[in-house]
Amino acid sequence: MLRFALFGAGRIGRMHAAELAAHPDAELSYIYDVYDSAARETAYKHGAKVAADVATALNDAAVDAVLIASPTDTHVDLITRAARAGKAILCEKPIDLDIDRVNACREEIASCDVPIQIGFNRRYDPSHRSAREAVGNGEVGRVEEVIITSRDPGLAPIEILRTSGGLFRDMMIHDFDMARFILGEEPVELVAMGSVLVDPRVAELDDVDTAMVIMTTASGALCHINCSRRCVYGYDQRVEVFGDKGMVLSANPTATTLERYSASATQAREPLLNFFIERYAQAYRHQLDDFIAAVEQSRTPAVTFEDGRRALILADAAGVALKTGRSVKLEF
Amino acid sequence: MLRFALFGAGRIGRMHAAELAAHPDAELSYIYDVYDSAARETAYKHGAKVAADVATALNDAAVDAVLIASPTDTHVDLITRAARAGKAILCEKPIDLDIDRVNACREEIASCDVPIQIGFNRRYDPSHRSAREAVGNGEVGRVEEVIITSRDPGLAPIEILRTSGGLFRDMMIHDFDMARFILGEEPVELVAMGSVLVDPRVAELDDVDTAMVIMTTASGALCHINCSRRCVYGYDQRVEVFGDKGMVLSANPTATTLERYSASATQAREPLLNFFIERYAQAYRHQLDDFIAAVEQSRTPAVTFEDGRRALILADAAGVALKTGRSVKLEF
Amino acid sequence: MLRFALFGAGRIGRMHAAELAAHPDAELSYIYDVYDSAARETAYKHGAKVAADVATALNDAAVDAVLIASPTDTHVDLITRAARAGKAILCEKPIDLDIDRVNACREEIASCDVPIQIGFNRRYDPSHRSAREAVGNGEVGRVEEVIITSRDPGLAPIEILRTSGGLFRDMMIHDFDMARFILGEEPVELVAMGSVLVDPRVAELDDVDTAMVIMTTASGALCHINCSRRCVYGYDQRVEVFGDKGMVLSANPTATTLERYSASATQAREPLLNFFIERYAQAYRHQLDDFIAAVEQSRTPAVTFEDGRRALILADAAGVALKTGRSVKLEF
Amino acid sequence: MLRFALFGAGRIGRMHAAELAAHPDAELSYIYDVYDSAARETAYKHGAKVAADVATALNDAAVDAVLIASPTDTHVDLITRAARAGKAILCEKPIDLDIDRVNACREEIASCDVPIQIGFNRRYDPSHRSAREAVGNGEVGRVEEVIITSRDPGLAPIEILRTSGGLFRDMMIHDFDMARFILGEEPVELVAMGSVLVDPRVAELDDVDTAMVIMTTASGALCHINCSRRCVYGYDQRVEVFGDKGMVLSANPTATTLERYSASATQAREPLLNFFIERYAQAYRHQLDDFIAAVEQSRTPAVTFEDGRRALILADAAGVALKTGRSVKLEF
Repeated sequence: MLRFALFGAGRIGRMHAAELAAHPDAELSYIYDVYDSAARETAYKHGAKVAADVATALNDAAVDAVLIASPTDTHVDLITRAARAGKAILCEKPIDLDIDRVNACREEIASCDVPIQIGFNRRYDPSHRSAREAVGNGEVGRVEEVIITSRDPGLAPIEILRTSGGLFRDMMIHDFDMARFILGEEPVELVAMGSVLVDPRVAELDDVDTAMVIMTTASGALCHINCSRRCVYGYDQRVEVFGDKGMVLSANPTATTLERYSASATQAREPLLNFFIERYAQAYRHQLDDFIAAVEQSRTPAVTFEDGRRALILADAAGVALKTGRSVKLEF
Repeated sequence: MLRFALFGAGRIGRMHAAELAAHPDAELSYIYDVYDSAARETAYKHGAKVAADVATALNDAAVDAVLIASPTDTHVDLITRAARAGKAILCEKPIDLDIDRVNACREEIASCDVPIQIGFNRRYDPSHRSAREAVGNGEVGRVEEVIITSRDPGLAPIEILRTSGGLFRDMMIHDFDMARFILGEEPVELVAMGSVLVDPRVAELDDVDTAMVIMTTASGALCHINCSRRCVYGYDQRVEVFGDKGMVLSANPTATTLERYSASATQAREPLLNFFIERYAQAYRHQLDDFIAAVEQSRTPAVTFEDGRRALILADAAGVALKTGRSVKLEF
Repeated sequence: MLRFALFGAGRIGRMHAAELAAHPDAELSYIYDVYDSAARETAYKHGAKVAADVATALNDAAVDAVLIASPTDTHVDLITRAARAGKAILCEKPIDLDIDRVNACREEIASCDVPIQIGFNRRYDPSHRSAREAVGNGEVGRVEEVIITSRDPGLAPIEILRTSGGLFRDMMIHDFDMARFILGEEPVELVAMGSVLVDPRVAELDDVDTAMVIMTTASGALCHINCSRRCVYGYDQRVEVFGDKGMVLSANPTATTLERYSASATQAREPLLNFFIERYAQAYRHQLDDFIAAVEQSRTPAVTFEDGRRALILADAAGVALKTGRSVKLEF
Repeated sequence: MLRFALFGAGRIGRMHAAELAAHPDAELSYIYDVYDSAARETAYKHGAKVAADVATALNDAAVDAVLIASPTDTHVDLITRAARAGKAILCEKPIDLDIDRVNACREEIASCDVPIQIGFNRRYDPSHRSAREAVGNGEVGRVEEVIITSRDPGLAPIEILRTSGGLFRDMMIHDFDMARFILGEEPVELVAMGSVLVDPRVAELDDVDTAMVIMTTASGALCHINCSRRCVYGYDQRVEVFGDKGMVLSANPTATTLERYSASATQAREPLLNFFIERYAQAYRHQLDDFIAAVEQSRTPAVTFEDGRRALILADAAGVALKTGRSVKLEF
């Protein structure tokens, strides 16, 4: 049984609260949020305590682990304090938008021997994971091409986008992690192109809302990622892996298997699941299961701080490639 | 919050115990099983009490509802006693294998004003339910043909089959209920054919392991059901509804969406889910949700004692049709 | 090179004329139709002669084969005369609507040693044929259940239906032949149900427009056929074969592979092909190929007079089963 | 009726010969090939004359059109001579591997008013064409992302590759044309990455066998192309078009619709069609139809010399981008 303090009671924090409360091997002890009322409401619902401040939770020896679901700019501080307090850490992505702060954090916590997992939940999606297994067990042979399609149902409000870090660090960072997960080796070079097609205000933020990237690895494998901030048919998330023995494709799930036949269409299925909370509900559960199991079995979590750092390095490199029109060599 | 006594701690009883224990609006108070050790183990796992006998649970005023998952031949007795004790009842199908006992039970409990739901869980499968909704909202128009395919992964042990009531009352009874659910009107006549193809010992039981039925309704809709006791590619469960405005097909789900492409096949997916506990996991959860909601809102449960009775009448009629080679007129 | 006389220049006759004219191993020598203008128009288009009467074509020693695509009630006479004239015969289904006339014809031509093929074109559809091959090569194992779905896009004009012989002999006869083709053994018994759902005038013809049948074979295999005279989403033609080693399903083709994703649907494909001339275009070509090859190689055609006769016996039996509500034992 | 001279009787020339011979509005008058025996064999089969040399065919006033299917390095010469002789021209892609020669040819024939079509047959594939129509009729809205997957079943012999012009000019040139066809506007900039993964001898040719490209257009649309010279599961050819109103996907066809269900897989279909002659058989027929119709109706052919030239410019630019690691601005 792992006792958790949850930091953050926003949309994703509330989802984690429910998962922690329902988990047979977890106990939700504390919730902290700068908005006290948000923390209170969620804590009340799940029978947890409201922490008056972060320290209260970290100083309680009965707390084994923290789940960090607060705004991105608080992650580094919370990771550092939790690590020093000896708590196991499950932190939402990204670690931070600034690679220098991430590197500094890495040094700060180097001597703290605590398990840290970064919340790249998609690795736990059963279909994406099966794609990875098809690589691992040799079914696709040597990996030659990976194609990742990633389209959000709709643009976030512009004020959210302003502090998001931009498409590469906020959205495509998930796909960079997926690329590393599937490829099984590090990208060595990257090119990028992008456009503002969804909302012209994105251009004012010096950002793009539609982008494509290609990466290569040392072995010569090629990986393409395409992202759009708006997709009218739902949350489109596909991963294709092509190798010298075959291909596997992690396709989009739907809520039911109902096929419809009418005068206008054949085998039509219902629209895709709307967004990450629905689409990756299973993935979030498996992520929590695996984190808890890793801590209890004293093994390194499956998605490390270093994984979070490297995904950010890829996102930064994509930004440079986009601006310069040149390929960027990657160093981690 | 509904407090349950669970009768039966076998395979399906244990599944219900886990669902009850995890349900936010349910409390698993008692478990009873003739095998005391089975009850004890399950009760211990979920923090419930072991009832020394059925009466203990039924006499406890704190118990609101019973979930009957014991052997079929105990259902009528337990339903009767629970109804007299004023408990809400969720009972696994079938009510009984003998229509006379079911009719007698109906009379016995006629004056007991308790909610009773029979466990035709498939009605709660999201895909089958969407098929029903496509009928209800007029999408398929007037229903003209319903085709239900129902294949179990493998034959149960012969000693289980011996007391099962036969393919029609044990297995196809689910499909008869599905037919009534989808058709939205009663069948009026039925023909049947069947064979022993899976295991010759089934013939010694005067039973069949493969069967097909056709039914008509008063409006002239036709419904076909096919069943097999053995299906090497998994648990095949499909419902097709054809009408004058189109067709919908509730197809088989798989655990992932992974598509495989190799030198020998294209778009291959992984095998079907193995059996009802995996295949209908969502359905069992939604069934429990709906039963609890019905009791709490004092509305009639969605699947009534009468639904259980009528499915048995259809199963019995299929047996007669098979033996006589004649169509059987249905009376309920 | 096989020189053909074509009898009949209606819709299907014109299709055969075009196929014969384009075939590298066939020559379309004569066309005869009671409507001289129809014959003339088609003959002119393909550079064939118009036969003044049937005898002209049959008496021409340069004619090797006849293709009979005239109205059903002329088939027996034309088959008999062509057989006596020593011509190879490809005759559209059915041979006749009256089994007595078919039997008499069989006796009449018994001593004529000419190749005769009946136009059950669906046997030549690449997908249905692959289903048959999956039976033949053992892929599905022992055949246990066959399910044939057969829905025409729309009801023929009532005056056509009046002389059609009824749903079983006009439409389901194709499915009876498909059943025999797939099963690889003869049906021994049959039950049927039917309704008038599409057009009430069908009832005045003492016919049905929607029907379901079940048949068994000596080995115990079960076969279900469902038919409707009207299907708003196109020409729905599926064949499913279930055995102890697996299942194969010949699904509906569409004109393109385009998948559409919109706010309302996922993986929607375009509507099914509209009717038999489009849907079975390949099958008609392969049928002609195979007939020509059979004649040239002096082998028995793949679909014999006896196949045509047995399909009619099944259709007649279905009519009896429908009227009597009793299963009918089959004798050929 | 258009009378053709065919130049080239190799694999693709023989396919064209058969198409021309079977076409109701074409006549195959002459065949010329440097290998006289190849020309003779094909001419004999289709009842055409063997031209002793190119001039014989071009000087015959009865010849209306030429179909150029000879080796790439002969295209420019044959186009020039045929244009001067006033013949309509259907020429296989590419026009030439050297853009300077293409430009020179353009000037040479500028004053010849003859219809010229370049053989980008894929534009005529029914599914790809439907994707284009979904753009044209507004179904996908504004085009934002195009993703083209293009994988050949196997590497050509190394001696063929030596003179092929490299992956971009030999293989991806088809995809560059498809991109222009689908986008409906010109690419303005391009990046590329590539690897030698299939056969190390490809590196000795200073070529790649696996490559990825991204292009942008003036409106900001992004287009990704991925190519591999080897694909064990067949000839994988997909086109995806994503816009602000939806997405369409031209998926791979298979020879039949048979779905297979076994203990190891669900809905498995047979392997993809093997290579372009099978996969694009319909496209080749429609291409010929459209070329003949364009000539007869005196309209400009759908795929012009300029289309051929621009596809080559894109291929050359991809080569530069690959070598320099920089994006290349496109000028046509």
